[in-house]
Amino acid sequence: MFISFEGIDGSGKGTQIQLFTQYLERKGIECVTVHEPGSTNVGEMIRQLLLNKNLKIDPKAELFLFLASRAQLVNEVIVPALRKGKVVVSDRFIDSSVAYQGAGRDIGIEAVENLNRFATSGIKPDITFYLDIKPETAFIRKKLADRMEMNGINFLKRVRESYLTLASKEPNRIIIVNAEMDIQTIHAEIVKFFEEFVKQKNYWNILEKIQSK
Amino acid sequence: MFISFEGIDGSGKGTQIQLFTQYLERKGIECVTVHEPGSTNVGEMIRQLLLNKNLKIDPKAELFLFLASRAQLVNEVIVPALRKGKVVVSDRFIDSSVAYQGAGRDIGIEAVENLNRFATSGIKPDITFYLDIKPETAFIRKKLADRMEMNGINFLKRVRESYLTLASKEPNRIIIVNAEMDIQTIHAEIVKFFEEFVKQKNYWNILEKIQSK
Repeated sequence: MFISFEGIDGSGKGTQIQLFTQYLERKGIECVTVHEPGSTNVGEMIRQLLLNKNLKIDPKAELFLFLASRAQLVNEVIVPALRKGKVVVSDRFIDSSVAYQGAGRDIGIEAVENLNRFATSGIKPDITFYLDIKPETAFIRKKLADRMEMNGINFLKRVRESYLTLASKEPNRIIIVNAEMDIQTIHAEIVKFFEEFVKQKNYWNILEKIQSK
Repeated sequence: MFISFEGIDGSGKGTQIQLFTQYLERKGIECVTVHEPGSTNVGEMIRQLLLNKNLKIDPKAELFLFLASRAQLVNEVIVPALRKGKVVVSDRFIDSSVAYQGAGRDIGIEAVENLNRFATSGIKPDITFYLDIKPETAFIRKKLADRMEMNGINFLKRVRESYLTLASKEPNRIIIVNAEMDIQTIHAEIVKFFEEFVKQKNYWNILEKIQSK
């Protein structure tokens, strides 16, 4: 099973992923956690480039760098882990490109979706938890320091709009979580949805572990 | 005017580009020389990554890295130079991706062509000099050292086939030059074609300079 977490910086993705993977470990469910861009040697080098505040990266070049990191991650880590029956948890995936580059940077949703399909050979998360917060909340929560985060409130508003549109187009995959709530409430909601999904889709090997402990 | 030089490593691109740009300078024709991947800060960092022999880069990731470098180069250097009326001379461009990644790495010609169109916003060279040599000649001429060149004779044969197919599809843009000939003969042929092209297409400002000196 492949699960991604999405949301603007400051939405609490990191915290929720940590709590969720700790929950999986307690249940004895093998999982692999990855983040984008990065999680491979090639990807981490691309990440350094993308976070370099001294570079003025062209929007299309930026998109291609994310896609390069993603193609490497899919083939080097995600596909092999899924083949071994592990749960893959990813901090950002395709929806980030659509929201940030497609909508935020105005490259176009459809173009970015097509490029993603090519980069990932069609692999999509089974569940995407979109942690929804107001851009204003993000500004309060975070010192916005690196290049990707220096985009201002209007940029983040476009990104949020795009996430919400994506969620309305794929309501079975993308779950909107109100991430203005407190940490434990959000975590409980994520676990509840995950367990229901496992039952509904009959993931027997995972279901057994959820129910045994 | 935008001119690219193509060919497998060892075809003498570097030498011919130097001779050609020296010719342009003697004629007082302003030109900008670029190479791929690279020629921008972002592009040179991508180049380091691509030439790193310790990395096992996924074929699609490799393609996206080339496209990232190209998108940056087009928007940061090529388009501004063309707007100023300069001649842009590029060591490799779109055809390299089609030949190396599309055919050599078997990603697919059409997919790579579509991606290139998106990356370059449709900008294509007016003339492409394809320096054709047998892969065997390349092996004799060059110590094949870096990652991109360690692909063996069969890989280079596929790349050459693809270049020749591209040239047959776009005979008005891609000029096949027999690069097994001696350096000065090749140079003379390139200059001859360039001057005829300038006359035929009525590039008045360049034509004046060619004829005045």
